[in-house]
This record gives sequence, structure tokens and C-alpha cells, in this order.
Amino acid sequence: MLNYRFVLRQLGLLMIGLSMAILFAAIWSAIEYFSDQHHAQEGSALVAMLITVGIGLVIGFAVYWFSRSDDDFLGRREALLLVALSWLWGAAVAALPFWLWAMFATITPDHPFHSWIPCYFESMSGLTTTGATVLNTAPNDIESLPHGLLLWRSLTHWLGGLGIVVLFVAVLPTLGVGAKKLFQVEATGPTQSGVRPRIKETARVLWLIYLGMTVLEIVLLRIFGMTWFDSVCHTFATLATGGFSTQNASAGAYHGFGINLVLIMFMFFAGVNFGLYYKMFRGHVRQALADTEFRMYVGFIVFSSVIITIFLANSSIETSDGRTLTGVAAALHHSVFQVVSIQTTTGYATADFDKWHFVPKTILLALMFIGGSAGSTGGGIKVIRILITFKVMIAEIERIFRPNVVRTVKVGRMTIDPELRLATVVYVFGIFVLCAIGAFLIYTIESFYGSTDISIDFTTASTASIATLNNIGPGLAKVGAIQNYGWFSHPSMAVMCVLMALGRLEVYAIMVLFVPRFWRGE
Amino acid sequence: MLNYRFVLRQLGLLMIGLSMAILFAAIWSAIEYFSDQHHAQEGSALVAMLITVGIGLVIGFAVYWFSRSDDDFLGRREALLLVALSWLWGAAVAALPFWLWAMFATITPDHPFHSWIPCYFESMSGLTTTGATVLNTAPNDIESLPHGLLLWRSLTHWLGGLGIVVLFVAVLPTLGVGAKKLFQVEATGPTQSGVRPRIKETARVLWLIYLGMTVLEIVLLRIFGMTWFDSVCHTFATLATGGFSTQNASAGAYHGFGINLVLIMFMFFAGVNFGLYYKMFRGHVRQALADTEFRMYVGFIVFSSVIITIFLANSSIETSDGRTLTGVAAALHHSVFQVVSIQTTTGYATADFDKWHFVPKTILLALMFIGGSAGSTGGGIKVIRILITFKVMIAEIERIFRPNVVRTVKVGRMTIDPELRLATVVYVFGIFVLCAIGAFLIYTIESFYGSTDISIDFTTASTASIATLNNIGPGLAKVGAIQNYGWFSHPSMAVMCVLMALGRLEVYAIMVLFVPRFWRGE
Repeated sequence: MLNYRFVLRQLGLLMIGLSMAILFAAIWSAIEYFSDQHHAQEGSALVAMLITVGIGLVIGFAVYWFSRSDDDFLGRREALLLVALSWLWGAAVAALPFWLWAMFATITPDHPFHSWIPCYFESMSGLTTTGATVLNTAPNDIESLPHGLLLWRSLTHWLGGLGIVVLFVAVLPTLGVGAKKLFQVEATGPTQSGVRPRIKETARVLWLIYLGMTVLEIVLLRIFGMTWFDSVCHTFATLATGGFSTQNASAGAYHGFGINLVLIMFMFFAGVNFGLYYKMFRGHVRQALADTEFRMYVGFIVFSSVIITIFLANSSIETSDGRTLTGVAAALHHSVFQVVSIQTTTGYATADFDKWHFVPKTILLALMFIGGSAGSTGGGIKVIRILITFKVMIAEIERIFRPNVVRTVKVGRMTIDPELRLATVVYVFGIFVLCAIGAFLIYTIESFYGSTDISIDFTTASTASIATLNNIGPGLAKVGAIQNYGWFSHPSMAVMCVLMALGRLEVYAIMVLFVPRFWRGE
Repeated sequence: MLNYRFVLRQLGLLMIGLSMAILFAAIWSAIEYFSDQHHAQEGSALVAMLITVGIGLVIGFAVYWFSRSDDDFLGRREALLLVALSWLWGAAVAALPFWLWAMFATITPDHPFHSWIPCYFESMSGLTTTGATVLNTAPNDIESLPHGLLLWRSLTHWLGGLGIVVLFVAVLPTLGVGAKKLFQVEATGPTQSGVRPRIKETARVLWLIYLGMTVLEIVLLRIFGMTWFDSVCHTFATLATGGFSTQNASAGAYHGFGINLVLIMFMFFAGVNFGLYYKMFRGHVRQALADTEFRMYVGFIVFSSVIITIFLANSSIETSDGRTLTGVAAALHHSVFQVVSIQTTTGYATADFDKWHFVPKTILLALMFIGGSAGSTGGGIKVIRILITFKVMIAEIERIFRPNVVRTVKVGRMTIDPELRLATVVYVFGIFVLCAIGAFLIYTIESFYGSTDISIDFTTASTASIATLNNIGPGLAKVGAIQNYGWFSHPSMAVMCVLMALGRLEVYAIMVLFVPRFWRGE
């Protein structure tokens, strides 16, 4: 029997926590509102957020209170259910400020936030650190949103990123869910007594590292010329590899070399296994830098950047804010930025890579699947899974002509046992299958219910599926670097919400919800 | 040390065999030539074929003679090398008549057969039972070819189909290459003494079954109104799930319901595991019909046909010879024909499915990957591998919340051991990876060296890769049902030749050639 009470109680805590986070955005909103210059709709944003805080606290405490119980058993199934519901239900809470704001504010009747599903899409995109937005062109664009909501939008990234790191590095491996080996934590077995304190300790360190990096990036961005507000919002989005910006032109709105360099650096940091920072924190710096996945991660970035730079150097580059650049320096700059942004699955754009040559576009597409490192805030399949799959494939080719040799598949000094080999290849293949199913659903739905202005095409449908499942944000064609997701029909958005959640929680936590045996607990 | 002498000796035999087959086509050509009405270029075809026969016999016997040896050890590596070279070298021999004919015949200077690579492409497409053609529009079209060459073209299918069935059902499993379980043969272990007689016996039965079906189909097609010549050519192409026709409009040139039904039936038969016919031959009919893969195979066909019929019933259908049809009967007819043709990887077309709705097209695309049964002449991934992969994925989802339950993955009464599970999933995933690599190469090559008249697009490049790797023939867009491959640049054709060989030999036999350790024999 599933311990529903415990799960409910934790969800109550989650609502309280989210309410406190919204309160933070509301306070910023209030300060702006009572200053001399403020956005015309800032007041309604403030009201919307305060109402959400009220609702969240009341329901949260009520649920927490009524589901109290002596039985605080957290098993594997409870953990999976809690993880799935945290994101699915958390996104509903996080969507409320957008929806309520649209109700109170003086905005156009076709603003996407008037409907529930686009609001849910936006908050799911935030919490899963995807960064795909439904906000489109003026007056329904990003820059027309009051600061309170923009901050909340970015804050959902930050919370989602922190949540995923703590979950995958500290919580799940200790509970025996997922391959703990991948997350660099030498977890003890799931003994009833020893688990909790260990989780708490690891989580505390991770949270401190995350907070420290946040403060550092905010300060650096401010130094290089961003406003405090933009520094905070962009920091939240980079550290979580989210990709929401406060600017319509995304990161391309900032031409300063310093800002671009800081963003590249912190996107890169965010794509590294946080287990490695934990190791460094414990003094094992050399060991952390020798990590195989880390080296592969760097290798992919360097290799892709070089190839793309060569292609870009011979053509002109259109930036996301509409300028046209040429030359090797610009090629290197925008190549590195886009490569890091896509591989870490952040999705910030300084250039409209949809207009690039087929080869650079294909490289970016491949990077979308590869994604960040395991235990990072990045999405995608994860570098280490790609590495294991590649090694398993080589071993299988050899097995054909040397069937009797016992082959060990190794990554660094870690031996991949047969069970993990199968699990990894199935996972990687499963991602491709899910992408195909997603693309098929989006294409089919759009061809029946879609907008009459914008017709769906194969590239758009498949990259929309890829970009949401891998938590990237932008894809190609009509969901390209300088496009948005606001034109999709609501059923398609709902499909993409599921894809984002699937990708963020590494598929299984969501997938098991559809297995009857999971609920029966046989 | 690889037993090269033995491999060479077998290749000598292969050349002698192919020469005899070409002689058969040459005799037919001669008969036509000395009759009253004959094709203007029949004479040059006859000469081209006779020269090839001469060259083939001389070199074949010479190789056979000089590589004689007492050591007739056929190990795993020798088998793999022999298999790979049989197709790669066999296609070179089989291409000679086309190339020599273009040298002697009075044809346009832009005829594709003037160059070696298109000739090799055509014969590789024949021997791998793909059915993709480089012949394009008049005067370089299919119908402008003399009968001798058309017959030889179709005969390459028949030989390739026979070769693959004997190989996968009789030879390889007995040698311990590949998963013998998949081919329904309860092979004894690869003991040095017992293998040869067993291979010979199984091969003899398979060959008789194949021959019997050939005679039956020829007679039936003749009864329903085809000429003897067309009956023979189309029989060769259906039983091998090849797809070469003697008509520009493919099978759509024949409107008779009888002919269509016979073609559907025999395409269906060709997609069944020939191990089952072997079983039936031994008297186990009921056991053969209860086979899980067979039932899935039928299931895929029925399910897809029903869905596509529903879509087609509400729209008009353009046939491959340019007529427009409507109504439920026509919808059912052309839906079933196309589904069977694509799933068996034959590639015959009676309708231009490229113009169909997105959903039917996607179903056909999925069927391209699924393909026929293991041990059939069909290509693709094979039904049983899809089934195993699906079951493994379900088991992996369950493993997440029930890690300690030992799960057995079963197909029918056959238990899939962990090694076969991994091998299967890796194979399936590998096919997708190869498709992606193929599409990338084709797209890149065409965008640099491609025709200036026809520009490459994503759908064309990817379905060209899919259709050649899975040995189907037609894809979508510019390689669609009523299109051809003659417009590709020669480097792209070379890539597709490799893809066809990879797909036909289930990847590994070709892949190991690129592994240094295979040659060193460590």
C-alpha cells in the first residue's frame, strides 16, 4: 500500500515553499510598484501574486496538517510519486500568478495568459528549466510583462534547477532509484536509519554551492553592466540551464563581451555534474577534474565550437536582435555561445541559428540530444549515457566475431555492469522513441486543430518535440531561436507539458504513473 | 589467421554461379533477339551479358583453382567476411552487364548506366532486394531498357532473396553467428563435424520452397493476364521483396484485381520467416501458425491497413500511373497494397502515397523500420526485434519501482536471455543511428555536390537513407513512390550502396570490416 499521507504531506510542504518563493517575487514587485517609475500592470501582478501566496499557504498548511501521520516511510514508490507530483502539481501552483494577473490586468484579449493551458505551459517550462515561452509579439511579448511576473518566471527556473540537482544527486541515489554510480555519490545502501541524515547533509552542501554560484553570477553580471533586476533574472535562468530572458531578443540583447562571457561560463558550470562540485567541496579537486564525463562534456563543446566556427567564418551571422555580423571573431563568439547554450540545454540565443548552414544546425541538433552531465541542472540524455551507449555498441560489434571473450565496458575506472548497460541503451533509445511520438502527436494535433495563420511542418513538429523533451527551449524553423511557442493549439501545448516533465524527471518518474501495477503495488 | 584461401575459393564459386545466372538472362535475350519483334538495343544487351559471362567464368574458375587448399575451415570470421564480400563483390559482377551495355548501345549520353557507380547502385539495389532504381525519365526510363537487362535486373532480386534466406536460416545460425533463436532453427552447436551436412539439408529444403513459390506465382500472374516475361520479372521481385518492376508506373501499371491480389499475397508470403515454411514442410503446420512473430506481422498489416483505409476513404487517391480514384473499395485496395508492399520492404507502388495525409505517411514510415519477419526475404529491423525491444522497455519501466523482482522477457514460449535483450535493443537503436548518419551524409554531400536542378531537402535525405538501409526502395518527397534515385550525385549513391549492404546483412557483417581487431584476429 502506498503511503499517500506522507506524499500528500510533502506536497503540502511544497505548496508552502512555492508560496514563500512567490512572496519573494511579490516583495520585489511591491518595491517597484511603490517606486516612482513602474510598469502600468505591476499593480495587478502584485495582487495576483499575493492572492496566490494566500491560497498556497492556506491549502498548503491545511494539507500538511490533515495528512500528518506517524508513518513517515519513504519507499521507492512513494519517492517516484512524490517526484512526479512535485513537478505536475508544482507547475499548477506556479501558473496561478500568470493566470490571475491576466484576469486583473488591462491587456489585449488575445494575451496567452487568459487561458489556463498556456499559463501551465509557461510555469512547467520554468520549473523543468526548459525555457520555451508562450509569450509572442508585442503587445503580448516578454518585455510587456511587469517585473514581478518576469522575476517569478525566472525564479521558477532557479527553483526547478535546485530541485533537480538535490533530487538526482542527494535524494534518489540514496533511495536506490536510478543509477547512483552516474551521480558520483558513493551512497550507502538504502538502510532505514542512515538515509535521512545523509540526504540532508548532501542536500545542504549542494544548496550552498548553488546559492554561492547564484550570488557570484549576479554580482558579475551587474559589474558588466546589467541592471540588478536583469542580473538576478538571467542568473536564475543560466544556473538552472533554463533560458527565460527578460528581453525579446534573449541574451542577444546584450552586446557586451563581458556579459556574454559570464553567461557562457555559468551555463558551462551549470552543465557540470554537481556531484563534482560536492567532491571539490570535500577537497578532491584533482579527482573531480579527471572525471571522464566532465572531459567528454568539454570535448563535445570544443569540437562543436570549432566546426561551427569554421562554417560561420565564411558567412554572415544574423544576431537574435537583428544585426548582421561577419568575421572570425564574431563567428567564434556566437559559435561558442550557441554551442554552450544548446548543449547545456539552456536555450539562450545570441544568433538566429535557424538560418545557419545544414551542418552547424545538425551539430546543434545532436547536442540537443546529448545535453548536460548527469547530476547537473542540464537536460537532454546526458553525456555519460551517450558515452556508455557508444561503448556498448562497440562491444556488441566485437561480440559478433569474438563471442566467447568476456567484455567489460568501462567509463573511466567505473565498470558498467550488464544491467546498467541495458538500462542505459533502453533509456537513450526511449528518448528517441518519445521524441518521435511527441512529434507525431504535435503534427497530427496541429494539422487538425492548429492555427490557420501558421501551418505546421515536419521540422517544426519534430524540433518542438526534441526541444521540450530535452528541456532546451528553442528548436528549428517555427520554434527556432527567435520564435516562440505561443502559436500552438492548446492540445499541443498540453502534449509538450508532458514532454517537458518526462524529460526533466528522466522519464521513469512520470512513466510509472501509467503502469497499473505501480498503483496496485504488487 | 583468417583462412583467406577458403574465402577466395567461395568467391570464385560465387562468380561462376552469377555467370550462370547471367547466362540464363542472356539466353532469354537471345530468344527475343532472334524473334521477329525485338527491342532495338536487345543485341547490345546480349553482347554485354555474354562478355560478362565470359569474364565471370574465366576469373571465377581461375580464382577457384588457384585458391584450392586442404584447409576448408569455415569459422565465424571467415563466414562474416565471405558474407560481406559476396554482396560487395557480387554487386560488382552483377553491375557489369549494365555498364557494358551502355558502352555498346545507342543511347543518350546522359544515360545513368554510362557511369560505373549508378550501375553498381542498380545491382546492389537488386542483390540487396531494395528495389531503388537510378533509371529515371524517358529515354532513360525503365521501359526503355531491353528485356535481357530487365530480366537480369529482376533476377538479381531473386538471387539476393534466396541468398539471404539460406544465409540467415540455414548457414549463420548453425555457425553461431546471430541469434539462432530468431530464425526458428533449433540448431545444434557449431561442432566441426555436424555442421556441413545440416546446412546442406536445410538449404536444400529452403531452396525447394523458394523455387516452388516462384513457379506458382509466375503461373498465377500469367493466368491473370501478365505476359510471361512480366510474370517472371515481377515474381522475382515479389518473392525477394525487391521491388524492381518492368513498368515505369511500378505495379500500378496493372489494374487487374487478380494481379494485384496475387502480388499482395506473395509479398505477404515473402515477408514470413522461411523457417516457418521449413517447419510446415516438416509437418508442424499448427505450430508454425501459432508463431508469435507471425501473428504480430499479420497484426501490423491489418491494423495499419484499417487506419489508412479510413483516411483514404475520405479523400481521392492518385495512382502511380496517374489516375484518380475515390471510394471505400479503392481505399481498401490501395491501402492494403501499400501497407503490405512497405512492411515487407518490397516497395512496389500502385498509388502515390507521398501525396497522402500525414498520418498514413507516418504509419508507412514506421512500417519501413519494422520490416518483415526474421528469416524472410524482407528487410527492415524485423518484427521480432521490435517485439523484444518493446517488451524490454516495459520491463525496464517496471524495474524502476520493483527493482528486486527477476523479470523474464518472453516472446511466445521463448525466453529472451539478458544477452539477447541487450543485443536486440542495441541493434534497433543502431539502425536509427545509421539512418541518421546516412541522412546527414546524403544531405551534406548533396548540398555540396548535388544536382543544380533538384535541391535536397530534409525529408528526401532522411527517407532516402531509411529506404536504402531498410531495403525498401521508395521513400517520401523526391524519392517518393513514383520518383527515382537517378538524380543523386555519385558520392551519395556510393553512401546508399553501403547503406543497402549494411541493412541487408543485418549490419554486423559489414561493420566488422571496419574493426582492425577483426582483421588481426586477436
